[in-house]
Amino acid sequence: MATATRCARCDGLERRANVRRNGGRRRVATRAASSVARNPNMAQLKAGYLFPEIARIRTAYLEKNPDAKVISLGIGDTTEPIPAAITKGMVEAAAALGTVEGYSKKGGYGPEAGQADLRKAVAERLYKGTPITFEDVFCSDGSKCDISRMLQMFGAGRKIAVQDPSYPAYVDSSVIMGHSTGFNDGVKQYQNITYMPCGAENDFFPDLSAARDAELIFFCSPNNPTGAAATREQLTQLVNQALETGSFIIYDAAYSAFVSDPNCPKTIYEIPGAEKCAIETCSFSKYAGFTGLRLGWTVFPEALKFSDGYSVRADWTRMMGTSFNGASTVAQSAGLACLSDDGMKAMEDLVNFYKENAAILKRTWEEMGYKTYGGTDAPYVWVSFDGRDSWEVFTEILEKTQIVTTPGAGFGPAGNGYVRCSAFGSRENINEAARRLKEAYSK
Amino acid sequence: MATATRCARCDGLERRANVRRNGGRRRVATRAASSVARNPNMAQLKAGYLFPEIARIRTAYLEKNPDAKVISLGIGDTTEPIPAAITKGMVEAAAALGTVEGYSKKGGYGPEAGQADLRKAVAERLYKGTPITFEDVFCSDGSKCDISRMLQMFGAGRKIAVQDPSYPAYVDSSVIMGHSTGFNDGVKQYQNITYMPCGAENDFFPDLSAARDAELIFFCSPNNPTGAAATREQLTQLVNQALETGSFIIYDAAYSAFVSDPNCPKTIYEIPGAEKCAIETCSFSKYAGFTGLRLGWTVFPEALKFSDGYSVRADWTRMMGTSFNGASTVAQSAGLACLSDDGMKAMEDLVNFYKENAAILKRTWEEMGYKTYGGTDAPYVWVSFDGRDSWEVFTEILEKTQIVTTPGAGFGPAGNGYVRCSAFGSRENINEAARRLKEAYSK
Repeated sequence: MATATRCARCDGLERRANVRRNGGRRRVATRAASSVARNPNMAQLKAGYLFPEIARIRTAYLEKNPDAKVISLGIGDTTEPIPAAITKGMVEAAAALGTVEGYSKKGGYGPEAGQADLRKAVAERLYKGTPITFEDVFCSDGSKCDISRMLQMFGAGRKIAVQDPSYPAYVDSSVIMGHSTGFNDGVKQYQNITYMPCGAENDFFPDLSAARDAELIFFCSPNNPTGAAATREQLTQLVNQALETGSFIIYDAAYSAFVSDPNCPKTIYEIPGAEKCAIETCSFSKYAGFTGLRLGWTVFPEALKFSDGYSVRADWTRMMGTSFNGASTVAQSAGLACLSDDGMKAMEDLVNFYKENAAILKRTWEEMGYKTYGGTDAPYVWVSFDGRDSWEVFTEILEKTQIVTTPGAGFGPAGNGYVRCSAFGSRENINEAARRLKEAYSK
Repeated sequence: MATATRCARCDGLERRANVRRNGGRRRVATRAASSVARNPNMAQLKAGYLFPEIARIRTAYLEKNPDAKVISLGIGDTTEPIPAAITKGMVEAAAALGTVEGYSKKGGYGPEAGQADLRKAVAERLYKGTPITFEDVFCSDGSKCDISRMLQMFGAGRKIAVQDPSYPAYVDSSVIMGHSTGFNDGVKQYQNITYMPCGAENDFFPDLSAARDAELIFFCSPNNPTGAAATREQLTQLVNQALETGSFIIYDAAYSAFVSDPNCPKTIYEIPGAEKCAIETCSFSKYAGFTGLRLGWTVFPEALKFSDGYSVRADWTRMMGTSFNGASTVAQSAGLACLSDDGMKAMEDLVNFYKENAAILKRTWEEMGYKTYGGTDAPYVWVSFDGRDSWEVFTEILEKTQIVTTPGAGFGPAGNGYVRCSAFGSRENINEAARRLKEAYSK
């Protein structure tokens, strides 16, 4: 057996053969705990992940106020049924798994990167006119899962930059991989991670020079939570800097279907050179109501290379082969239905419905004199409370109106002073939310 | 901005502001590659993951021999349709996602750990009489995915032990997390990982003393690939050692439904004390033909603690919240249907069908004078070729009979000399495979 080479923090680990003899009979001592040390990176994480925390608070509120008619504008969770054109494909796919022929086609292990027809449809429908081919498209059970997996693939010792505020999985997954040396309570930031503030003062586009030394830059547009969609010019600036410094951009396009401004690209690969520096992750969750069904994709362009010239896509293929077994075949069939002509139309209608919701919420706050951002090219309205503590505002809104929002600080320190209102809801609930907000917050 | 603390291998990373001025116009230099170094752990991995490699060889064979009627006894992929009792529940669940009521119940983001009714059904149906409660059961998209995630949660610097041969994801996922210092071509083992040989000489149960210093011991029973099911006495020995040394056992029970020997436990939690030292991972893949549908679970018992007393289950909850969003809701509904009375009966029938296949294959080889193992409490027949190179035998079988098997060496060096025959196949194909084998291999 090879001798263990231990890392510094494991060197001190003491192993005791904790055996006592008892009347000649070998007796196993019951240990209070194992000798496996907790991963110190896990210990760095703050309490719970943001959204389970919000769900916990909501549940606790309902326990105290069992008659409350709580409306959730909190987690960005779709509420409308999956359109008929898409459900039909999914139901057929599910039923086919009960037949010999159907099972032989799509019943067993599929390719880890997704079924070829789905990958081709994604490339054809959503990346036409860009350098992306279907071989660059890897389907999966969603962007959050892919982000964690890709950080595992990139390994230890990475320098990370994020927009502040941003989707909490970027930072939390980076902390798990050891990219921070600890949380700084003063500035409310994880050390060694570069936070790039995005606020009204810079039109929600960060000073990128802070990220010149970053290896991996997380960038989300349209942005969760601020709702800001980056322009072609801004994304060109981002891509050009990455090409200069040799950074990778991890571009989260989860909300790109919500973009209507023609000056805002729907994919980063519209920017020349992005295929050499950007990974794009996206999902059907917010396009077609697949939050529970779980289907997304991540693009690793063939031209993306490590510093030694090795293909990033080749490592991702190896990573997916080792740690993943393909998205659920039924979800993949549903995704294929999304990309049919009828499916594309149904997704557009659904997105427009949520955009109308966003417009209602945005108007509600603005008519009361609140400054809002986003909500036109994104399903999120970012409401300014002039620097007030956002957890305090969150609690106040819940208590005054029985509406769950998300406190801006949950997305990073620069989110404090804001609250995110999600436009995912039935029209009835959105209208009722607007009514309650007007009652409680008219200035 | 905090100063980057780089790990040793990143210190040398040179960043050049690779910008040239060209006629007064700022021009971005096109770099051949980024400045992001490849993760050296990924570079340690051998070519492809085993099963995609086998699939590649099969495809290449078919390209050369387009008329070949290839039968796959290779990857352990189910072939029979999902039973009607289960498909029915799944189709209903899929259709319900197209309705307002159905979507509101199970359409959106579900709990990362799985729907409560499914977790309860797993605990009630499969862990009754053990200390496991439904809160210990975490549903997911499968064991392979959970293994990779749990290694990410445990973090760097771990000492790993595996049975040799074993399911390749244990070692490959460990290598990705940096638990090896490199591959030793001489012994065909990754350095710093403890391989515990399991062969005919020790009745396929390893000398556990080799793993006394391991923090994480992977143990699979019924074993993939050898088909050996560990007895109560053997598992008691394993658990008692882990309780003594403070190791964690990661117990892979993917094939436990195939156990008929009453002396072989179906879950490690039948062994007293296992809830203090064992994580058990299992899946519906081989029980109900869910290989493509993706649904499994992993048990993190409440009593499992790190050396500082912190709950492993609490860290797993945080890990799942950060890197996962729940298994596909349609797969979860199908899983619930599996655990109904009708579903349990249907799964039993399916397992028995594959066990009959295994018996046919085992008999075929034995009648020709080959020594075989497994195949009675597992869907795998482990055929001895008296020390012959297993890749050579694999190629020979493919060429002589157009049957794809899996070479034993693909599971670790102690697997050399053996070939794994999977019993997953239609009866027609299994009978035809038996016929071809008899024709080619009768001694």
